[in-house]
Amino acid sequence: MSIFSKIAAGDIPSYCCAQNDEFYAFLDINPMAKGHTLVIPRREVDYIFDLTDEEIARMHVFAAHVARAIKEVIPCVKVGMAVLGLEVPHAHIHLIPMQSERDMLFSNPKLSFDQATMQAVADDIRTAFEALM
Amino acid sequence: MSIFSKIAAGDIPSYCCAQNDEFYAFLDINPMAKGHTLVIPRREVDYIFDLTDEEIARMHVFAAHVARAIKEVIPCVKVGMAVLGLEVPHAHIHLIPMQSERDMLFSNPKLSFDQATMQAVADDIRTAFEALM
Repeated sequence: MSIFSKIAAGDIPSYCCAQNDEFYAFLDINPMAKGHTLVIPRREVDYIFDLTDEEIARMHVFAAHVARAIKEVIPCVKVGMAVLGLEVPHAHIHLIPMQSERDMLFSNPKLSFDQATMQAVADDIRTAFEALM
Repeated sequence: MSIFSKIAAGDIPSYCCAQNDEFYAFLDINPMAKGHTLVIPRREVDYIFDLTDEEIARMHVFAAHVARAIKEVIPCVKVGMAVLGLEVPHAHIHLIPMQSERDMLFSNPKLSFDQATMQAVADDIRTAFEALM
């Protein structure tokens, strides 16, 4: 079981931003920006393009709803998206609030927020996500 | 009309990798890796998350097919994906063949290939894309 499967199952705690039967969104614990969120399928697949076309369609619609929720609660110009996937072998989409394109450089130093701040950000995103449904 | 709309319409030449009625894929002229491809909707929308859910679903399925074609013809570990979108105001997905996660750093120096190489890469991707249909 990947670390992300354990997170989606609740076996490892996370700051949940959104979820449904098939996908789970949670705050990146080493964020590049406040509100940096990961979206994963509950089904454990390493390479995102190995998902079926139907799964890809549903995953990106789910991620778009999460991105719209992030944009509502985190001041940013746009929410950027990235899929790299050479470190954790469980497909995941990064959603990152951007002020400039430089905010999407994965070489940037990672940020750290206290637990109360992380919880508040996740709660705000989840509330916005549910309101968009 | 955005520069990308002109490219999709054929008013500006490009190295076409795949197309259908709704989307167009072409080689990035300042690539980060050989095979670096951009996928755009023909409908001119600035922010990708302003597309409808149905458009987002179809665009990512189209992009997944292009990514699978790229993987067949360009030696790489995985094809990465990124959406930044603060420079050209027409939504576009970057598909970038990766050897390592560092290949996804947009601060990397851009590469340059001669016209014959670009045409050959685009032709190979298009052939692989059509074979996957």
